[in-house]
Amino acid sequence: MSKGLLFVVSGPSGAGKGTICKKLIEKIDIDLSVSMTTRKPRPGEIDGKNYYFVSEEKFIQTINSNGFLEYAKVYGNYYGTPKEVVLKKLEQDRDMVLEIDIQGALKIKESYPKGIFIFILPPSMSELRKRITGRGSETEDDINLRLGETLKEVSYIDKYDYCVVNGEINEAVNRVAAITKAEHSRVSEDIYQLIAKYKEEI
Amino acid sequence: MSKGLLFVVSGPSGAGKGTICKKLIEKIDIDLSVSMTTRKPRPGEIDGKNYYFVSEEKFIQTINSNGFLEYAKVYGNYYGTPKEVVLKKLEQDRDMVLEIDIQGALKIKESYPKGIFIFILPPSMSELRKRITGRGSETEDDINLRLGETLKEVSYIDKYDYCVVNGEINEAVNRVAAITKAEHSRVSEDIYQLIAKYKEEI
Repeated sequence: MSKGLLFVVSGPSGAGKGTICKKLIEKIDIDLSVSMTTRKPRPGEIDGKNYYFVSEEKFIQTINSNGFLEYAKVYGNYYGTPKEVVLKKLEQDRDMVLEIDIQGALKIKESYPKGIFIFILPPSMSELRKRITGRGSETEDDINLRLGETLKEVSYIDKYDYCVVNGEINEAVNRVAAITKAEHSRVSEDIYQLIAKYKEEI
Repeated sequence: MSKGLLFVVSGPSGAGKGTICKKLIEKIDIDLSVSMTTRKPRPGEIDGKNYYFVSEEKFIQTINSNGFLEYAKVYGNYYGTPKEVVLKKLEQDRDMVLEIDIQGALKIKESYPKGIFIFILPPSMSELRKRITGRGSETEDDINLRLGETLKEVSYIDKYDYCVVNGEINEAVNRVAAITKAEHSRVSEDIYQLIAKYKEEI
């Protein structure tokens, strides 16, 4: 009944938003939005699948032509969500899911407020600590700093439509899938087209 | 995370809201709200399951003590949704589903605005005509009158949160089930309790 919808899956690092998106596209009929970056591809990464790998010149051109839903520079590399690809798929009635950090999600909310914003939460801070510690690459101080940042990030949750606690991964994926299904049944402007059709019929 | 939610399943006669509710309670963990009535039980109807069968005196007492989420008098009999039963179950974290006509749903929206209002639509007016004609009890004029009324009723759809087109019954039930699941992931005041818990943990 409605056009394609854009689902923005976001949340603090370690909450599991990447895994949720990966499993979601296996489970339901939805396309994953692919970011553009100036970072060099790592072994095994495929252009157009993991990222669109482009030169800095091309990236800046795209910025200047207002071609991103959001972009950011991280550790000297640019990352962005190309607007045209996403909007074209939505117009073709394809749902899209986009995995992004909280800063990026807030930018998308400005550039595409019709998006549906889903915040992924870890089941608890102690569980998040365990997940980060499991990666083994950070000191106790680093971890405490990260958890403090997470707490700050979580305060942006009121900008989101939904929040899914990622305790058991399949349950979390099922919840996101239910959100995508429910959102297609929202009363929206499209409904008036259907009502108009009823009137013609009678 | 949240308390029980009240889902109000409503729509024009013939759209199939009764069948949807019946299948929904078989499929997911939700209780059907039972109405109170002064009408006499028909053979096979069970008090407390199909209706709470009460005297007119008792019904009017309940009206006077503000004990209904909504009530109406139809062909000389009273029908109403007893407030206490519904609210108690919601407080006990039980989800409730309530099948009701459009006038009733609009009254519930006033008495319990936190409810989630789902409008069930027939796939087309010609399909609705077929369903009504199939019942065999009405003349052509009656049917045209009914369809005209349906069209008026459909204009209240903008008071609702969701609308589900009942073409294939199992697909419609799945949609309502997805709505119940998604609504439990809405960002609401409850989320701040979880965040407070995070803060204590850190």
